[in-house]
Formats: sequence, C-alpha cells, structure tokens
Amino acid sequence: MAEQAGVREAAAIPISDIKKSLSQRPRVAILGTGLIGTSMGLVLAAQKNRPFEIIGMDLDRGRAREAKKLGAIDRDVGSYRDAITGSNLVIIAVPVLAAREIFETVGREFADGAVVTDVCSTKADVIRWAEDSIDPSVNFVGGHPMTGSEKSGPKAASAELFQGAIWALIPSARASEGAVKTIEGLVGLTGATPIYYDAAEHDTYVAAVSQMPILLSVALFNMLRESPAWEDAAMLAGPAFKDLTRLASGSPTMSGDIMDTNREAVLHWVDRFREQLAQVSEAVQAGGDPMADLFVKANLDRDTFIEHRPVRRPPAGPKGPSAQDQIWRLFAGGLYDRYKETAERMERGELRDDKGLKRKLGGKDRGR
Amino acid sequence: MAEQAGVREAAAIPISDIKKSLSQRPRVAILGTGLIGTSMGLVLAAQKNRPFEIIGMDLDRGRAREAKKLGAIDRDVGSYRDAITGSNLVIIAVPVLAAREIFETVGREFADGAVVTDVCSTKADVIRWAEDSIDPSVNFVGGHPMTGSEKSGPKAASAELFQGAIWALIPSARASEGAVKTIEGLVGLTGATPIYYDAAEHDTYVAAVSQMPILLSVALFNMLRESPAWEDAAMLAGPAFKDLTRLASGSPTMSGDIMDTNREAVLHWVDRFREQLAQVSEAVQAGGDPMADLFVKANLDRDTFIEHRPVRRPPAGPKGPSAQDQIWRLFAGGLYDRYKETAERMERGELRDDKGLKRKLGGKDRGR
Repeated sequence: MAEQAGVREAAAIPISDIKKSLSQRPRVAILGTGLIGTSMGLVLAAQKNRPFEIIGMDLDRGRAREAKKLGAIDRDVGSYRDAITGSNLVIIAVPVLAAREIFETVGREFADGAVVTDVCSTKADVIRWAEDSIDPSVNFVGGHPMTGSEKSGPKAASAELFQGAIWALIPSARASEGAVKTIEGLVGLTGATPIYYDAAEHDTYVAAVSQMPILLSVALFNMLRESPAWEDAAMLAGPAFKDLTRLASGSPTMSGDIMDTNREAVLHWVDRFREQLAQVSEAVQAGGDPMADLFVKANLDRDTFIEHRPVRRPPAGPKGPSAQDQIWRLFAGGLYDRYKETAERMERGELRDDKGLKRKLGGKDRGR
Repeated sequence: MAEQAGVREAAAIPISDIKKSLSQRPRVAILGTGLIGTSMGLVLAAQKNRPFEIIGMDLDRGRAREAKKLGAIDRDVGSYRDAITGSNLVIIAVPVLAAREIFETVGREFADGAVVTDVCSTKADVIRWAEDSIDPSVNFVGGHPMTGSEKSGPKAASAELFQGAIWALIPSARASEGAVKTIEGLVGLTGATPIYYDAAEHDTYVAAVSQMPILLSVALFNMLRESPAWEDAAMLAGPAFKDLTRLASGSPTMSGDIMDTNREAVLHWVDRFREQLAQVSEAVQAGGDPMADLFVKANLDRDTFIEHRPVRRPPAGPKGPSAQDQIWRLFAGGLYDRYKETAERMERGELRDDKGLKRKLGGKDRGR
C-alpha cells in the first residue's frame, strides 16, 4: 500500500517541473582552490557523465586558474558572490577565519535549498557563524576530512587524497536529513568514511590529534634551530627529525586560524602533554624496568592502534545508492528519486513517452 | 721522484705474497641481521664479481636464516666467535648494549688487521668498549647511518635504505688511515655520504635529532592513549598524529639502549624542548602577531632546512676509486694498491707474466 501511494505521488509530479529543474545546469561551487578544495574538485570532475558544472573561486586568482588547468574546476569566477549565486552545492575550503569572512559577507546569498559544507579543522565556531548568517532554507553540514599534507596549494592536490581517511561530519541542527545524506554521499565519492561528531567533541579531539602535533613539530624544530649546534646537528637529522617536524612546514595561516578557534582545547592538551613528557623523562632518568616498560607498552599500544584502529562505520542503508545516483541526488534532492521513478515508468510505458527527457536521463533509446 | 720510489716499492712485493693473500676467500661478517645489518648485506651482495663471502650471525637464528633467504648473506653461523674468526671486515649491527656484550666476550678474537665497524646510535661508549677490548692490530671505525624505519627485522631491509643518507663516521684514534678509508668506501657503496664527527659531538647531536623524536612520539601517543577520550579521538587521528607518533612503534630494546648510553645528552634536550614548548604555548595563548610570527618563522626556516640542508662533503681525492676498486681494497688494504699496480705493470710487460694472478685479477687475457 505504501508503495502504491509512492507511485501515485511520483506520478503527480508534472514532467514540466522536472524539465525546468534540468534547464539550468546544476552547479557545485568550490570556495578556495588549495590542496583540499582542488582535490575535491578532482574527485567531482572525475565522475562519469556528471550532470553538473564545477566552478571555483580563490582570492588568489592564480590558484584558481591552476585548479582549472588541472581539471579540478570547469570555470573560475572572481568573487565569492559569483561563485555561490545559484550553486546547489557549495564547498568552503578555506582557512577557518576566511570561512567566517565568507559567512559574514555573503552568507545571505546562498541559493534556496543549497547544501553548504566546509572542510575547516575546527567546527564549533564555524557552525555558529553559519547558523548566524545563512537563511533557514539553506542547509549547512560541517565537515572535516582527516587527511592533508604539509604541502599546500592546487599543485599538491590529488583525487586520491581522501582514500581511506575518516571524514568528520557535524551537521547544523537546522540542516535537512536530505542535505546530510547529500554530504555523506559526497564524502563517499572521495573514498573517505564519514563519521558523525558533536562540534565540541570534534574540536576537543582534533586539538589532540591534529593541533598538538603542529605545536610539537614547531617546538622540536625551534629547539634545534635556536641551538648553537644547529648547523652540525642538522646534518645528522634523518627521517626521525624530518617526520617529527614536518608540520612546522604547514601553512602558517591555517595553523594560526585553527589555534584562534580552538585555543582552550589546545592549551588543555599542552598541559596533558607536559605531564606525559615529565613521566617519560623520569622513566629515562630511572632507566631499568621503568624505562623498558615505557617503551614496550608504547610499542604494543601503538602497533595495536595502527593495525586495529577503532572505526565506527555509518550504518549502511538497505541498499546504498550508487555513486552515480548520489551525485545526481546532490542536485535534485528528493525530486531526483521521483524523477528517476518517473523515467522508469516511462520506459515501462506507464507514462506518455517524452524523448527529450529520456535523452537527458540517458535512457535506453540512446543505445546505452 | 716520489712516484719512482712508489713504483720501486710496489715491485718489491713478492707476487707469492699477493697470491697467498688471495688463497683464502676474504670474508665480511655481519653481526645482527636486523633492518640495518640485512640492508648492508643486500648492498654488499649486489656488488658485481665480489671477491668475498658474506657471513651473518644473529642471536635469533631465524632472522639470520631470513637474511640468507633474502640473499643478504651467503651463510649463517651459530656464534659471534665463528662469525668474526678470520673475517677481514666485521659489521656490528646490533642494539648498542648488545655491542658491548660482543666486545666484552669476543673482542680479543678479531683477526689481525681486521676492520671493524658498527651502526649503533650512540658512539662514545661504543668507542670506549672497542678500545678496551680489541687488539691494537684491529681497527675500529664507528659508524652511524642516519636512516632507518620504525620497522625492524630482515623483512623490512632494502639495499636502497641508505641512499642519500648521512653516515656519521667516528674512527677510534687507533684505527689506521687505510681502515678509515675502507669504511668510507663501504659507506659510499650504500649510496650514503660519510661525515666525520667526534664521538661526544655526535652523541649530543643525535640526542636532539634522533632520540628526542622518540621521546616526543611516546609522550604524544601516551597523552591520547591514557585519555578517557582515547577511542573516539583515535578515530579522528590522521597523518599528523600517525607521523608524530611513528617512533613509539620503534624497537623498545633499541630505544632503551640508546637512552642508557646517552642519558645526559637526552635529558639536556628534554629541558631545551620544555623551554620551546613553553614559548610556543605562550604564543598560542597570546594569539595575534606573536603567534603569527611563530608559525611564519618555523615554516620559512624548516623549508630552508629541507631544501638547502647544510651538508659537509668529504673532500674528494684527485680521482675517487671505483666501487669495484673499493670493495677489493676492503680486503687487501694497502696491499691492494700495490697489487693492482703490479698487475698493470705485468700487462705492460714490465714484469714477468703470471697467468694465474692475472686470471684472479680479471685481466684482459680473459677477454674482458
């Protein structure tokens, strides 16, 4: 009976509406064509028969042109306003304080029903800025891919960047379920695994796993750099020193913005780290069993962490949508499901045939 | 005149002596077939027409067999004594306290004139143990390749491990110049660059660039592992946390031994690190310019360090020996130079021909 009702409802959608919804080419806007924005563009651009245009905007226009040259965006535009106007999906991939700027200046101009996401490293402030500035008809779903590189800019981008990574999702309480599923689908296209977090919880954890490593990298690098032994000691620096100071080469703006929006949590972990360093240093001072125990335990625990990392998987639906379905759904939302059903009914001859629509749907009469 | 004298001296070496020196197959012994020992074995085994046998010994006999299966050694033996007896070159590739054990138990049994090196991470103690136990006719040249992996064991080994790395050399004051050149040549075969250090200087620097990174990895890992948030936060851990805690997975024995033989230097750097962390933490607390300056400066300085790393190259001789020359020289020492010259003179007809010797030299009459 429920299915019957569904069919009846689908049939009630006038085909003219569906056609109209296809008359404007759907658009994805990527704001900020750095490492993450360009990598996401590369993922989206690689989707077969993609029904949407990808436009990019970067305050550094050269970077947007570079992203275009790499095939990550179809077109670059000169302002955030131009990028978001009429875009169905907006990906904000800028340092976190630049995201605030975007919300404050053009937050009212997202298209009705648009789905907006970001990739910033802290979330509580971003969600607040979004909710303070966007219309209730716009859906904000915060995101944070747990990947990256100390390299930045479009040249370092890769469609593989997100493969196997965790992607934290923190939807605004006002975002529709459809919008949340849309972003979950987008994350799926990148090869990452979406996991939902509360904003405060997310920010506390990333302070430990992403931001403390930055501070330790900088402190270790400076320890040697400011030593009179710098030149001679630097020659001896092998993979250990290079890896442990890698994040000191990260973007200063990004690092600064992250600290500015997550200061309390970061300083909390600095204190926890100091306690641990004191324990480690005492064990080294003591030598013997206390020191052996320390290294053995760390070795076992870290190997366990690497080999059997705890991962909460999002519950799979009864039948997951295909990537192709998902990418179409990004643009038509619930309409897409009805639209697909309508097309199938037309093919079964249950509705009047409409060759134009079928062509747009890539129906069987085109020989596929 | 000096050249003339040299020629005269060379002619004075009886060919029978040279033949005798070739009648026993020269041997390299690798003590410890872990990551470094096996990788060095792979480098040596890959030398074309190598005139020596490579034997290996590991207290874990399974690891020695594994190294043999990988082709890094020709034969494995059951004791350190068996390995070093009659070996021309001995490579000690065990954790530093196991090296002490070797010097104390079989230090008197190295062959006369043998060249002995090690790859341990600290050097002052090792040099002292060597000088306390080996005969004056044995040459000890300490070494420390600045490479490695958190992985250990022969399976992780690779002949490429040392390519482009710095290899610190710390000769015992009693080692002959020829022995030092021999180890320099050995390092050259691995693709690494040898740089000479004083033992105390070396140990102070590696405490900063190799041992502090281990302590920071362990402290950071424990900071999260011992937090009540461990499971949820661990899911968010991306490349930053993984890289910065990589060394916590290192061999506990190796880490412990290194600390035991370099405690004072390590604790010195722990204090320097604490000061730097306090500065970093104050800058984050302050925000604004102090924080921006911190990240900008670290970024610039580290990029400079990575791109234009200061490297003292060993002064190249007027004409560097070929790898083939060098590997022969490993076994015949100064004798080899005279031996080669003798062979050349024989080819020029200046000395009585000796087909047997020429064959051993791979002379032109064999169609090469």
